[in-house]
Amino acid sequence: MSKLTALFRKALSASTSSNTSNTPKADPLEVTASNESNTPKEQTRWNGWGNININKEVSPHGAKLIKSHIGKTKKLSSVTLESVIKTVPPSRLPSALTDLEIVSTDSEVRVRHARGQSFPDWIAMHSGDFGVFPDGVALPKTTEDVEKLLALAHEHDLVVIPYGGGTSVAGHINPPEDSRPILTIAMSEMNQLIDLDKQSQIATFGAGTQGPAVESQLAKQGYRLGHFPQSWELSTLGGWIASRSSGQQSLGYGRIEQMFAGGTLVTPQGVLEIPDIPASSAGPDLREMMMGTEGRAGIFTEVKMRVQPQPEQEIFKVVFLPNWEAGQTVLRQAVQGNIRLSMLRLSNATETDAHLHLGTTRSQFLAITAYLRSRGLGSEKVMLTYGVTGEKEQNKLALSQFKQLLKKHGGVGGKIADLMGSIWAHGRFKFPYLRGTLWEKGIMVDTFETSTNWSNIDEQMAQMEAAVHNSLTHQGEQVMAFTHISHVYKQGASLYTTYFFRAGKDHASTLGRWKKIKHAASSSVANGKATISHQHGVGRDHAPYLIAEKGELGLKTTASMIESLDPEKRMNPGALLDD
Amino acid sequence: MSKLTALFRKALSASTSSNTSNTPKADPLEVTASNESNTPKEQTRWNGWGNININKEVSPHGAKLIKSHIGKTKKLSSVTLESVIKTVPPSRLPSALTDLEIVSTDSEVRVRHARGQSFPDWIAMHSGDFGVFPDGVALPKTTEDVEKLLALAHEHDLVVIPYGGGTSVAGHINPPEDSRPILTIAMSEMNQLIDLDKQSQIATFGAGTQGPAVESQLAKQGYRLGHFPQSWELSTLGGWIASRSSGQQSLGYGRIEQMFAGGTLVTPQGVLEIPDIPASSAGPDLREMMMGTEGRAGIFTEVKMRVQPQPEQEIFKVVFLPNWEAGQTVLRQAVQGNIRLSMLRLSNATETDAHLHLGTTRSQFLAITAYLRSRGLGSEKVMLTYGVTGEKEQNKLALSQFKQLLKKHGGVGGKIADLMGSIWAHGRFKFPYLRGTLWEKGIMVDTFETSTNWSNIDEQMAQMEAAVHNSLTHQGEQVMAFTHISHVYKQGASLYTTYFFRAGKDHASTLGRWKKIKHAASSSVANGKATISHQHGVGRDHAPYLIAEKGELGLKTTASMIESLDPEKRMNPGALLDD
Repeated sequence: MSKLTALFRKALSASTSSNTSNTPKADPLEVTASNESNTPKEQTRWNGWGNININKEVSPHGAKLIKSHIGKTKKLSSVTLESVIKTVPPSRLPSALTDLEIVSTDSEVRVRHARGQSFPDWIAMHSGDFGVFPDGVALPKTTEDVEKLLALAHEHDLVVIPYGGGTSVAGHINPPEDSRPILTIAMSEMNQLIDLDKQSQIATFGAGTQGPAVESQLAKQGYRLGHFPQSWELSTLGGWIASRSSGQQSLGYGRIEQMFAGGTLVTPQGVLEIPDIPASSAGPDLREMMMGTEGRAGIFTEVKMRVQPQPEQEIFKVVFLPNWEAGQTVLRQAVQGNIRLSMLRLSNATETDAHLHLGTTRSQFLAITAYLRSRGLGSEKVMLTYGVTGEKEQNKLALSQFKQLLKKHGGVGGKIADLMGSIWAHGRFKFPYLRGTLWEKGIMVDTFETSTNWSNIDEQMAQMEAAVHNSLTHQGEQVMAFTHISHVYKQGASLYTTYFFRAGKDHASTLGRWKKIKHAASSSVANGKATISHQHGVGRDHAPYLIAEKGELGLKTTASMIESLDPEKRMNPGALLDD
Repeated sequence: MSKLTALFRKALSASTSSNTSNTPKADPLEVTASNESNTPKEQTRWNGWGNININKEVSPHGAKLIKSHIGKTKKLSSVTLESVIKTVPPSRLPSALTDLEIVSTDSEVRVRHARGQSFPDWIAMHSGDFGVFPDGVALPKTTEDVEKLLALAHEHDLVVIPYGGGTSVAGHINPPEDSRPILTIAMSEMNQLIDLDKQSQIATFGAGTQGPAVESQLAKQGYRLGHFPQSWELSTLGGWIASRSSGQQSLGYGRIEQMFAGGTLVTPQGVLEIPDIPASSAGPDLREMMMGTEGRAGIFTEVKMRVQPQPEQEIFKVVFLPNWEAGQTVLRQAVQGNIRLSMLRLSNATETDAHLHLGTTRSQFLAITAYLRSRGLGSEKVMLTYGVTGEKEQNKLALSQFKQLLKKHGGVGGKIADLMGSIWAHGRFKFPYLRGTLWEKGIMVDTFETSTNWSNIDEQMAQMEAAVHNSLTHQGEQVMAFTHISHVYKQGASLYTTYFFRAGKDHASTLGRWKKIKHAASSSVANGKATISHQHGVGRDHAPYLIAEKGELGLKTTASMIESLDPEKRMNPGALLDD
């Protein structure tokens, strides 16, 4: 044990020093006054994830494991930013727009706002085949600016794309082919805490505020929002609301639906003020009607968020259980038993094995697997990460109740539980960086996710993994897939599947492979009792599959609601609704 | 103390014996297999509240207190059921409807489905001036029956009024004047538990199931819904969902929004199946879009509800605090501090005094006020009712944390806390019966309610009480008003004001008084940062005030959404939207 502990201490110290220097702090509890504004666009990668100063390495035996599934890989070529800039066509925006100080038609700015983080976006950004660029990017500073922009959009018949952090993995912010000029409205200048009502615990923010800037501005006053999606480093309040985001600690803090209290939505038909009332029986809830409209109904400019005092204590732990059945039983009983945890995450056996490879050195891996084997956990073992957040006395009861539950189902933690928990917490926002590292090795990675009832969890997971696993068999290609649950509810849980395949001979053939996998993946969800997305939203990539979930009538009702606010269909056409 | 305790024990034993015989058990923990179906219509009062076998007396010194505020009163006259039946006009329904076995045009049935429980409804039921009766009442047994009825409604151009328990206090189910024949669809035959998925804790019910039948059917299998609005004895699942109801234990179990997982809504445009998914980011939530549509979009036929195991333990207690400020601080700190209570209710000083009068004998009243005075609590004292529900270890922590908080703010409970808590629990669904008793004395009573942020609670309460208090001054009439908080959220709380005034010389003048008070009451809410209803819904009575909350654009968006499902505006016209 002492050797094992030492190995993990080393890993922890590595993860908190060199990799995070010069960057927004990865751990929200460490946010400081030094990063109260958004990350400047020039400090983010133009063709990949995150801050240009951050990298995350893949262990050699981790890469080897993946290749043992998918075969030998070869790196795809990448174009330069300069070469892409040269392909940007002249702007079609009228002078009424280009004359505005808040509108830029600079080619680099247009490139940097043309794509998100979906797999097709990465192919576009590395092949240089962008297709469509926005004709200009507006950076409004006030609600009135946005009103003016939408009025001009009407007057000059523009298409408008609302842009938050540009982190969509489902094609939310991609300008579509359209005969009308396209104006992307990027909300990054509206990034400040405007008001904090401490008695009602309501914070008013500019909707373009990114995760770290939200938390650092609140932390200065002793408060926290608690919304930590994987994209937290770059994604924004407005984006979270418009796409119904869910953060890693949704068990404790709730989804964005529970946090969003109201605010200002600028629509083509005028300003919709959504009142911040604690609860109401006065008809359908405007908050809930507008959340998830993905820019189709308008643009959130100022938002009122339910915040909470900084927690007295926060602890994350990692434990292992003998198998998936034991793991998911623990999750279900914990949430249905009201044990006050702030987070629960369970990797299935394949993901557990992969994470143990990817996140460790060879010697760490051998030490931990040997230790777990000595405790009776073999190849079916699953990794469970959990957290408590809040008042110490409440945490103490929650930890004691949860430990009893773990013990009953064969959980193994011990000293490594805290150490691995700390490693997870310090590295929690760095996983997206792995994608670039793997890309450089010719290993393509993508994810898809859903949620379903507990009675359907096993069946749904099996369908999802089988679907992607078999999707390229006809081409003789292997797809590696594994899954975790990261959000639990009394009724059911999320399922999040990661898959790996190898790049084709060029960008086009690689994208062709992805399209086949993606269709198989989306169909496995659409054909199940499950949602097409639990946390990524619909965007353009999932829109064709939404009908399976909402039905024809459900989609028609949604479209009618949206059309009443955007009768000219100029707001983000093609997102959400497959029109 | 022992004298006081004895007095309360006596009260408790009285409240649990004679008054509740022959009736559905008032305490949900005592529901049994004996009342698995809805209360038959003929066992409910045709012109007042509840079961014909239940009465609730008013103490003489309670009635005296009210009269000391409003003056001497005189009883209004009441017509007989027989005389009203004679006024029912011939049905305008075509034979395609009247030939159906599930449709009744019997005059008594039409009378019994013509009105709810609003003040104007009581005036109508006692004066005999009903105005409009439904032309017939359908009692569908299946979703297909409802589909067929809506198809016939389209074919024969009918107005349709969905009817649950008939408990609306805002005019939801009142047939409007219309040149089209009016068909009321009463859901009382669809009153059974259809399926229980214990793993996912999802129960599927017929939407017409009343509160006691919901709980007794679930209790047989060890489960509980936990939705206990004041109307629980008669109101239904479908009604709760359609009007966004909130129950007394919303703090523990959530509002109906948290319980409703999905289900079948039959609309004029077809069947909308709302999937029961734990959580989703796939666009606006159909559940939330349809909850609160108040029958305008369609009729819920089968509903999937999130249920929970019966609690291991449930305790209610009543304590007193020195003043309102102390009381509301305790409520706010408890909910914001995540203390796991299932219920919190705080009466202001006037309500506390009135409840102590109304719910006690003179000797009990003197004993308890003397005791509280000996503990330093005078005329500003406020009464706080709280509950814990769930697992014993969690309850223990919650009680210990809450008692600390109470102590800090001067709370006084002692032995009477448990006794008064039990009295409250056993009488919790009998308060609506008081209205009839007071009516017989010429004392008119009504309530209105809202919710607002904590930072606005005091101001809002002051505005509401002043508005009704002063509303009849120009007539030389006094209105007595008091308020409680019965639902708390981190962001704010509900405010529920009860007011008393005396009957006029006849029904018309009494209704005239009420209209003045109601307008003052509704305006005090509409002009504040508050919702026109936290738990009663909009109906026809609140519809004119909804625009203050939703804005013109918000109302237009809601109307568009609804119109896409009911383009011919035949579903419950006039409810929710003031059209």
